[in-house]
Amino acid sequence: MKHTLKEVADHVGGRVVGDASVEVSGVASIASAAAGDLVFVEDEKNLGPALECPASAVIVGESAAPGSASKALLVAVHPKLAFARAARILCDAQKRPPGVHPTAVVPLSAKVGRDAIIEERVVLGAGAAIGARSRVGAGCAVGANVAIGEDCEIYPNVSIYPGTRLGNRVMVHSGAVLGSDGFGYVRDKITGRYEKFPQIGRLEIEDDVEIGANATIDRGALEVTRVGRGTKIDNLVHVGHNVQLGENVIIAAQTGFSGSIVVEDNVVMGGQVGLGEHAHVGEGVMLGGQSGVLPNKVLRGKGIAFWGTPAKPVREYLKELAALARLARKR
Amino acid sequence: MKHTLKEVADHVGGRVVGDASVEVSGVASIASAAAGDLVFVEDEKNLGPALECPASAVIVGESAAPGSASKALLVAVHPKLAFARAARILCDAQKRPPGVHPTAVVPLSAKVGRDAIIEERVVLGAGAAIGARSRVGAGCAVGANVAIGEDCEIYPNVSIYPGTRLGNRVMVHSGAVLGSDGFGYVRDKITGRYEKFPQIGRLEIEDDVEIGANATIDRGALEVTRVGRGTKIDNLVHVGHNVQLGENVIIAAQTGFSGSIVVEDNVVMGGQVGLGEHAHVGEGVMLGGQSGVLPNKVLRGKGIAFWGTPAKPVREYLKELAALARLARKR
Amino acid sequence: MKHTLKEVADHVGGRVVGDASVEVSGVASIASAAAGDLVFVEDEKNLGPALECPASAVIVGESAAPGSASKALLVAVHPKLAFARAARILCDAQKRPPGVHPTAVVPLSAKVGRDAIIEERVVLGAGAAIGARSRVGAGCAVGANVAIGEDCEIYPNVSIYPGTRLGNRVMVHSGAVLGSDGFGYVRDKITGRYEKFPQIGRLEIEDDVEIGANATIDRGALEVTRVGRGTKIDNLVHVGHNVQLGENVIIAAQTGFSGSIVVEDNVVMGGQVGLGEHAHVGEGVMLGGQSGVLPNKVLRGKGIAFWGTPAKPVREYLKELAALARLARKR
Repeated sequence: MKHTLKEVADHVGGRVVGDASVEVSGVASIASAAAGDLVFVEDEKNLGPALECPASAVIVGESAAPGSASKALLVAVHPKLAFARAARILCDAQKRPPGVHPTAVVPLSAKVGRDAIIEERVVLGAGAAIGARSRVGAGCAVGANVAIGEDCEIYPNVSIYPGTRLGNRVMVHSGAVLGSDGFGYVRDKITGRYEKFPQIGRLEIEDDVEIGANATIDRGALEVTRVGRGTKIDNLVHVGHNVQLGENVIIAAQTGFSGSIVVEDNVVMGGQVGLGEHAHVGEGVMLGGQSGVLPNKVLRGKGIAFWGTPAKPVREYLKELAALARLARKR
Repeated sequence: MKHTLKEVADHVGGRVVGDASVEVSGVASIASAAAGDLVFVEDEKNLGPALECPASAVIVGESAAPGSASKALLVAVHPKLAFARAARILCDAQKRPPGVHPTAVVPLSAKVGRDAIIEERVVLGAGAAIGARSRVGAGCAVGANVAIGEDCEIYPNVSIYPGTRLGNRVMVHSGAVLGSDGFGYVRDKITGRYEKFPQIGRLEIEDDVEIGANATIDRGALEVTRVGRGTKIDNLVHVGHNVQLGENVIIAAQTGFSGSIVVEDNVVMGGQVGLGEHAHVGEGVMLGGQSGVLPNKVLRGKGIAFWGTPAKPVREYLKELAALARLARKR
Repeated sequence: MKHTLKEVADHVGGRVVGDASVEVSGVASIASAAAGDLVFVEDEKNLGPALECPASAVIVGESAAPGSASKALLVAVHPKLAFARAARILCDAQKRPPGVHPTAVVPLSAKVGRDAIIEERVVLGAGAAIGARSRVGAGCAVGANVAIGEDCEIYPNVSIYPGTRLGNRVMVHSGAVLGSDGFGYVRDKITGRYEKFPQIGRLEIEDDVEIGANATIDRGALEVTRVGRGTKIDNLVHVGHNVQLGENVIIAAQTGFSGSIVVEDNVVMGGQVGLGEHAHVGEGVMLGGQSGVLPNKVLRGKGIAFWGTPAKPVREYLKELAALARLARKR
């Protein structure tokens, strides 16, 4: 989509220095930019290369903004954020026309909202409801009574178990499985066999959540598994039954949650973190990659980083690593 | 399904104290129970809340059973197990009527057993055989000559490679991949290229196994990969070629097995455990989350817990963790 | 496929000792061999069992080759490599006849090469191109403008995002997701919300790459994610945006790459390794299972093995493990 730099500046909340009528039609990195592209500079040392690259305009921060430049500038408080927002209006992927593809299976009891896109080979279960302007990608299997909100983007080959509920503007990448049975058994001490504990709860995903490719999120056993508003989950993450994830939580790839874990708002987790059942991660805690949190453990401290297995404050853990290295050198 | 408490008690092997004719039609947690629900109490301190909640009846253990109560009681030796068994008759999900959906692709050479359910868009390969009362969910791709036993539940979008064999009552969750090629190559020292070692063995899964969402289990290279009866595998677990898993093994999410590993019966593994090729885990061993077992390593000891990388007896490992913490504090 | 041992020897570059006209029609392990099979011996102590098993012929190395034997021998410099190559002509799976299955959705703008196989329920996007003799398995969702080279094998239920490019002879196993959005957000400090950074780059996979079941490889954010020629990626591996993987790299299962990592040629990684963003792994480095490489870290040393978190030279790490064990024993 083509826009003048002035229009973009108005959209992202910035001001133009130079020619406000210059047109931009895409975003790019400095290394890959072509004419018509908008680029951004966070680090002042990249300003020179940005001005020299073929891009048509550059987003810069207030402090870095020169009085005049060889290119039109969009000056914003937070240039990377402005760039992300500009991309949303410039790179709006050409969506296909709305409607239900003839190869999709949509029972009479299912509801498809206005301007929704139901792609090839989608299967909707009885009573499923897809909100307005949402897209359900090719090959998705949407179980009975699943409710998907408005403006959602469900990529191809996602599987959603019956009764799962998604809010608005939720993005789910290919291969993700939502609402599968949790991992719970009761052992019969006489026969030695494991019998399945009922996994009949639900999964609720709030607005503005994004879920990565091949991630799996289990339904509650008897209760509800919940993913809070604005939380972002990377590829191949596992979320067990009854887990409660807060709002604006960031979870990098391949991290795994056992059952009944509570994660408060604004937590940030690296990749491959593992958490035992009933662990509790307090607001704003940060967990380094590959950390391990023991069952029932409570971690607290806004902005405090934890690392290692069992996870401890990162300064403490680094001291241990250093002490061990010294000890090994001694011999 | 509605049943009298007497019928439920007869099914799970317990006895009723109070009104045996009270009807129950579902199970729930104490926190979420409504009239008509059956709840259970393992910890005596929950007996009060259970009797006060809206549930219609309560399962309690022998020792905790009061002589009389405000609610009908089902007294059982192992209340949680009785609850799990009660759930099976009370929560029998309304299955759809048996039959082959017209959008499924079923070649003439495939066999579909009596009362089996072949859902939308399933593709069966030549010579595939689906046992009586088994369900193959929407979008599953079942390769040539795959044999699935009776009463199996294959959730949507599962992929099963040719020749794989599943026993009876096997559950496979969405996105799982069964019988894929193992990871084996031979390097040509002259060109530096890796050439594929043949991955032409088979995968056999015995009765009563459950396999989690997006788990992957590779076929044998030249031999057979085997998952023993009653073993339960959580989401995103990886099982390499030629692995032999015993009976009643519990494997939590994101654990990974390299090739040719042997795991004996009754082993319990936490999440994110990694095992090197040709490792051997003896009967009844327990492995803590994120443990690492080196290639060719043998772990033995019924009921012994191992932890850490490389995995060692947990007491030993905890001593090391404590010694390191002391050492770091000294400076 | 039946071949004389002479034909096989000519194909793999070896010579026959004994009856060169003996026919072989498959490969097997010594333990599972039947008449008609070809087996191989790497370790001299297996020569006896190989000669006694029912196989029709045995591949042996130059040094182990007896002057005469009870069975026809194929003598090769590298017997396991010869075996792998023999398997390719002996075990050529009966491919189905080429063509587009009537249940596949192929738009007019898509191109399907000569003798390609487009299986049941495949969905090709506008402008997608499938090379000659390539197979796209049942249920695959291939996005708009995806280009797949010649002789590729895409197993069922793979999802490929728009614009992704695959070279020739690429194998992709079931459930893999190629070209999904990377995990990148910009936080709005005022609202506390994470806004999506554009993920509009591309994914390019070069010739002879193999990708395991349920692996996920993200597209570049603004640039290109690249998987070099001959690289082999195991099941459930995660590759983040902008990662550059060199040629002939081996990556075992469940390893994860954050964004913008560079891996040079001939690197070998164990399973469950985790690498932080902008890490750089130099040519020929080896990384033990479960290692962790910190963000921005550079590892160098052809043939040097690293292990642990943070990864260090394996000798150093083993010294630390030993020192810690001694320390713990002291008390």
